[in-house]
Amino acid sequence: MTFLSRTAFSRLSKVSANSLGRRHASKYASYNWEDPLNLESLLTDEEKAIRDTAHEYCQENLLPRVLEGWRTEQFNHDILPEMGKLGLLGPTIDGYGCAGASNVAYGLIAREIERVDSGYRSTASVQSSLVMHPIHEFGTEAQKEKFLPRLAAGELVGAFGLTEPNHGSDPAGMETTAEEVDGGFIINGSKTWISNAPVANVFIIWARCKWDNKVRGFILEKGMKGLDAPAIKNKLALRASLTGSIFMDHVQVGQDALLPKTLGLKSPFSCLNSARFGISWGVMGALEDCLHRVRTYALERQQFNRPLASFQLVQKKLVDAQTEVALGLQASLQVGKLKDQDAVAPEMISTVKRNNCGKALQHSRILLDVLGGNACADEYHVGRHVANLQVANTYEGTYDIHTLILGKGITGIQAFAN
Amino acid sequence: MTFLSRTAFSRLSKVSANSLGRRHASKYASYNWEDPLNLESLLTDEEKAIRDTAHEYCQENLLPRVLEGWRTEQFNHDILPEMGKLGLLGPTIDGYGCAGASNVAYGLIAREIERVDSGYRSTASVQSSLVMHPIHEFGTEAQKEKFLPRLAAGELVGAFGLTEPNHGSDPAGMETTAEEVDGGFIINGSKTWISNAPVANVFIIWARCKWDNKVRGFILEKGMKGLDAPAIKNKLALRASLTGSIFMDHVQVGQDALLPKTLGLKSPFSCLNSARFGISWGVMGALEDCLHRVRTYALERQQFNRPLASFQLVQKKLVDAQTEVALGLQASLQVGKLKDQDAVAPEMISTVKRNNCGKALQHSRILLDVLGGNACADEYHVGRHVANLQVANTYEGTYDIHTLILGKGITGIQAFAN
Amino acid sequence: MTFLSRTAFSRLSKVSANSLGRRHASKYASYNWEDPLNLESLLTDEEKAIRDTAHEYCQENLLPRVLEGWRTEQFNHDILPEMGKLGLLGPTIDGYGCAGASNVAYGLIAREIERVDSGYRSTASVQSSLVMHPIHEFGTEAQKEKFLPRLAAGELVGAFGLTEPNHGSDPAGMETTAEEVDGGFIINGSKTWISNAPVANVFIIWARCKWDNKVRGFILEKGMKGLDAPAIKNKLALRASLTGSIFMDHVQVGQDALLPKTLGLKSPFSCLNSARFGISWGVMGALEDCLHRVRTYALERQQFNRPLASFQLVQKKLVDAQTEVALGLQASLQVGKLKDQDAVAPEMISTVKRNNCGKALQHSRILLDVLGGNACADEYHVGRHVANLQVANTYEGTYDIHTLILGKGITGIQAFAN
Amino acid sequence: MTFLSRTAFSRLSKVSANSLGRRHASKYASYNWEDPLNLESLLTDEEKAIRDTAHEYCQENLLPRVLEGWRTEQFNHDILPEMGKLGLLGPTIDGYGCAGASNVAYGLIAREIERVDSGYRSTASVQSSLVMHPIHEFGTEAQKEKFLPRLAAGELVGAFGLTEPNHGSDPAGMETTAEEVDGGFIINGSKTWISNAPVANVFIIWARCKWDNKVRGFILEKGMKGLDAPAIKNKLALRASLTGSIFMDHVQVGQDALLPKTLGLKSPFSCLNSARFGISWGVMGALEDCLHRVRTYALERQQFNRPLASFQLVQKKLVDAQTEVALGLQASLQVGKLKDQDAVAPEMISTVKRNNCGKALQHSRILLDVLGGNACADEYHVGRHVANLQVANTYEGTYDIHTLILGKGITGIQAFAN
Repeated sequence: MTFLSRTAFSRLSKVSANSLGRRHASKYASYNWEDPLNLESLLTDEEKAIRDTAHEYCQENLLPRVLEGWRTEQFNHDILPEMGKLGLLGPTIDGYGCAGASNVAYGLIAREIERVDSGYRSTASVQSSLVMHPIHEFGTEAQKEKFLPRLAAGELVGAFGLTEPNHGSDPAGMETTAEEVDGGFIINGSKTWISNAPVANVFIIWARCKWDNKVRGFILEKGMKGLDAPAIKNKLALRASLTGSIFMDHVQVGQDALLPKTLGLKSPFSCLNSARFGISWGVMGALEDCLHRVRTYALERQQFNRPLASFQLVQKKLVDAQTEVALGLQASLQVGKLKDQDAVAPEMISTVKRNNCGKALQHSRILLDVLGGNACADEYHVGRHVANLQVANTYEGTYDIHTLILGKGITGIQAFAN
Repeated sequence: MTFLSRTAFSRLSKVSANSLGRRHASKYASYNWEDPLNLESLLTDEEKAIRDTAHEYCQENLLPRVLEGWRTEQFNHDILPEMGKLGLLGPTIDGYGCAGASNVAYGLIAREIERVDSGYRSTASVQSSLVMHPIHEFGTEAQKEKFLPRLAAGELVGAFGLTEPNHGSDPAGMETTAEEVDGGFIINGSKTWISNAPVANVFIIWARCKWDNKVRGFILEKGMKGLDAPAIKNKLALRASLTGSIFMDHVQVGQDALLPKTLGLKSPFSCLNSARFGISWGVMGALEDCLHRVRTYALERQQFNRPLASFQLVQKKLVDAQTEVALGLQASLQVGKLKDQDAVAPEMISTVKRNNCGKALQHSRILLDVLGGNACADEYHVGRHVANLQVANTYEGTYDIHTLILGKGITGIQAFAN
Repeated sequence: MTFLSRTAFSRLSKVSANSLGRRHASKYASYNWEDPLNLESLLTDEEKAIRDTAHEYCQENLLPRVLEGWRTEQFNHDILPEMGKLGLLGPTIDGYGCAGASNVAYGLIAREIERVDSGYRSTASVQSSLVMHPIHEFGTEAQKEKFLPRLAAGELVGAFGLTEPNHGSDPAGMETTAEEVDGGFIINGSKTWISNAPVANVFIIWARCKWDNKVRGFILEKGMKGLDAPAIKNKLALRASLTGSIFMDHVQVGQDALLPKTLGLKSPFSCLNSARFGISWGVMGALEDCLHRVRTYALERQQFNRPLASFQLVQKKLVDAQTEVALGLQASLQVGKLKDQDAVAPEMISTVKRNNCGKALQHSRILLDVLGGNACADEYHVGRHVANLQVANTYEGTYDIHTLILGKGITGIQAFAN
Repeated sequence: MTFLSRTAFSRLSKVSANSLGRRHASKYASYNWEDPLNLESLLTDEEKAIRDTAHEYCQENLLPRVLEGWRTEQFNHDILPEMGKLGLLGPTIDGYGCAGASNVAYGLIAREIERVDSGYRSTASVQSSLVMHPIHEFGTEAQKEKFLPRLAAGELVGAFGLTEPNHGSDPAGMETTAEEVDGGFIINGSKTWISNAPVANVFIIWARCKWDNKVRGFILEKGMKGLDAPAIKNKLALRASLTGSIFMDHVQVGQDALLPKTLGLKSPFSCLNSARFGISWGVMGALEDCLHRVRTYALERQQFNRPLASFQLVQKKLVDAQTEVALGLQASLQVGKLKDQDAVAPEMISTVKRNNCGKALQHSRILLDVLGGNACADEYHVGRHVANLQVANTYEGTYDIHTLILGKGITGIQAFAN
């Protein structure tokens, strides 16, 4: 054991003491319950500016539309173009009409959108992480030029076709195939629970290539013969965004449909990691919205001649939720900063996706009960978040799947098939 | 709403894009399950050096002694001097033989000590946060000169007398009194569940002053007439550290015993906040030790012809604990950095004390079950951590008390007496 | 202490040994996972016959209609008459066209209806416990003759107006008033979240009587001047049953509208206790349905080349739910048997209402996750149960309110206003 | 579907209505928080008499000794003979000096003993279920005559050797062997975590027979050459009962040592099922003791000028524990009654063993926190129960193992090796 020599210890200490000044006095900062661990102090000015832009847009333009969207399961075609105008789509891409912002900024955008609704955030996540990201990462210059600016502007809507009816958690079981034909490829197969599919113009489709049995991505476009993307209706959640199936019956595409740098499942997983990172921020926004709404309700609602907020059992619910928001955001921030430095490991993303989704779901449900009978009214918004968060906890890797990904990370032992 | 103009947006973006370089490629860092969110990258070189010193000392010098200490409830008088030699006591104080290190460093030390045993960490916490801190913060220059160097060296052992038999969570009910007499004060009262008391040379005693009904602190010393500090034996936890009562029957002290800058309960609360911050780090160390030991056990132990670590139900236990460690440490780090900038609010400390203690207790208990019958053997160490963490979750503000502190922070409504 | 004498002990023993025969051999019964603690063995033949009737009706006649009801929020006017024909309404009442069955039978009926949907069960609970029960318990012979047979037949629909907009959990704050006028009473006030209200012909309305400040019940009828009961639409749960507000603006009723034996809040509480008892059975039915559906899904769904049901993490979810169903039903059975003997205490009903609703909600949510993306599709039914059970956990005394009722039962201390 | 005809329905109803009388009036029984679902009403007079005998003995004779036993890890040799005198050992056996009582009575005895300490209950469980039961079930008449009366009297102490160092949860991996030699058998192997072993006179040892590879049971006796049973000291729990290893180095026994009716693992599993049933009652007794002690403490302890028992957060802890006791006891009662009728399935026993142990552990821990700092003092008894219950949750089938047993019961799929 190498004890630091007393002198070395003092010397080190002196530096820090000088640089920090007289820090040990018990001076306290004032407490902001909305930002209990002062996340604000860790953001750059640019990140705060982007966050504020997103916040105002979402509160002023998305919130007023969300009940109608939820009740009717209708997609509002104005929203993506509006987001595009503000630079909220594909924000981490540099060039092609994109903002080139940090990954933290991307997370902050997701949080603001999901503060209104997970469905809107899903729409944006798919566009940014699952469609623009793979084109930018795995596409040719021509593909980027053709698609990215219009996707960034929200003029085109994208969808991401990975999940298949029989292989929700196990993409290795993929049955969709691509075979090479003269001048291009023929794609056959089906995908399900695909966000945006019914309204998408651009589809990133993952298929097993018959010639070498490897998975690659292809860009399909609306209107191709044999391509159909009907909506799944009567959903119990994410009703403000559209979900559908994709059926591909001998869809013929040209050579230029292939994303040439894709090879194997690590390519779609790269997209999923980007999306999962955004989800980890988004769900915290949804939980924050629940917390704020329930807190206000509890302060205003009187029972037994005092506000609900004075009940210990209610305070505990608020505190538990607030703590998990604070911790979840700190963790996602650290992952975002590491991502900005190319220093992130996929397991880190699994950690924040799993934890933040699980905690958001758990605590939004607990908060919902404070509303009593009003929990049932969609005007109170919390019940809608609760329904949405169940899906967020399940998609892009269910909670259990991420448990096993991390279990392998810790033990080295794969237990999916155990 | 102020939309960022497209140009402003691009300009901001350019800066960040340039400074971050080509960050969007899917390059991954390798994953270190022992530091799943790369806390290491957020520490200064000094902090890492201090942490490493503490780690080696604790593993090499404390771990081999802990079973004996636990089994016999004996205090080892060598330990505080050893810690003192390494600069581990009162480390954030600048001068008086102290290291002047950061609050984060203080937290890292607590984590390393509690990785071995919460009892040892309690001993050190009391010395640093509850005895040296108030002397440094509220004492005269003469008091500092007299006590701090010897406390820093571990030559003197300190104890902190706030809690009273009938007022565990409510110091406002304090019954201990000080009355002014010729040349000093007479102290009467009793304190209980006082760490270090049976072996302490120096006691920081909080008393209600009869002349103005305000609470102030006094420095009492071993051997004063009327002062007795018997040990509480047969404890179910923290058996490696001593706990006792303090009885004060007309203890007469001089004017120089008064800590002159203390006034009201905010003075002892300042000490508690310092200690609670350290506890928030310490308990994460204990939980990490449980995680490491149980992981190793699960990898080595074969049942049904395969390692326990391959069981999904076991992997989930490991993953849940690992995630909470990762999140708790990030949160405590942020609080430490804010503390280093005099930007901490007491509620932030309540947040990490409460969360980290609660989670450490919860998950150490869950991990313990993996040991099966061996959970009962103290050689496996996890059961000892579990017993200790129940106390850590309770002292310096029980979990529920911190819930209500934070409930007030969120709602503005005090519910202690509700 | 009175030791049993050896002889007395033996004598007692002999009796029991004889009567039980050779019971100690390790002979095992076969295991029925659908009835894991053999509830069947504790039911009378009559109870089983009623249960079977209800089960077949619900599965054959309610289940096929429920998705349509849920999606459109439409009330199906055929259902109550159908239930009436089978004797499922007001089943514990003896006479007036009612079956005079046991309380256990009533519970079994509730379980079967809620196995399909909590909304249908709510409709029936209101009819039986909240409308027929108070008329039978507190009404005149003329009132009974007039209303009970037609309510039992499902020709009339009843509603129960206790809850007010500002006093969800605290009926003592009631603002609805009755004042005596020539020939009857005038009722003013409003009620909200009233099941069946928009389609009700008969309303049991609770009002504070101005002449003595006591609460009494009144029977109002559809079409009375000043009485309005608009539907609350866009509910997030219980969409297969109707809910509404009741507005009473100078509704004038005759002397015969007063339920003469009502006096004080104990009268509506008697109704609530009857309803809560039924709910405690109903929610177990809903959770059982979730368990059966998820089990089947997990057996059929293959991931990673094996059925989901082979995953330890999935088995744990099934087992936890199954155990809580088994325990909850045993507890409700005991309460039902005590109720049949007039030996029930209201706290017993709070215990099973609170426990069973809380557990049903908790475990239905956990089970839902097994469905993965399909959780979102209403054809899988589990998500609908989850949404419904949140309401069941909240209405007729929220979970927290029952906690405090029982807290008072244990400690003698009222903490509602604490 | 077979609708009951209206007439049949009425007829059935009439019978029940007549037999039950006018049961529907809202008459309430008074509430006994100590028996919240009126378990008492379901016990026979004999069962109540036995329970009362056990209760008085335990409170008057065991409780005063338990702290000493816990602190010193000493076995008190008076206790088993005292229990024997009262008929508390092997109580379900008919004859051989045993009481021939019901299985419910056996459960009630276990509950009373564990109300004091799980260690004492373990000692008695081993004697009754794991030693006397197999001799009675699988032994020759000579074996029964030789051992049962002296075991029933507590003159002999028994131990049960099934668990091996490397096969805690998987007895199929048994390494202990028996080989046939002239005049008897030679036993080799080792067992660990064996209750009572260090003080046992009689050992039921399970070994794999070399001649046919089947597991059979043997009766070994203290003092046999090659048999050693050293104590395991410094346990963290169950310190009032002794635990040890058993080492068998060429232990030679006669033909009469073989339990002739044992064959395969179903024989020791029969013993475990008997013991597990008793544990399911015992742990409820321990949790009840925690509840009673914490309730009293919370009523007496004043904080913030009111009793702790008036805090909502404290009331919730009490109520949750009380409910789980009430439900757990109802379930165990039903299993006991089915056992008395030879109508129990092993999975039923797994259900109550797993549930009751898990809930007792969970809620005793939650209750412990109410004691604040005093949780650490063994005089308050709750901390001791908490430590004990961790072991009870683990032995005789860990919580997870019972999960998987039941998972198989539900799904038909074995997932131990998954």
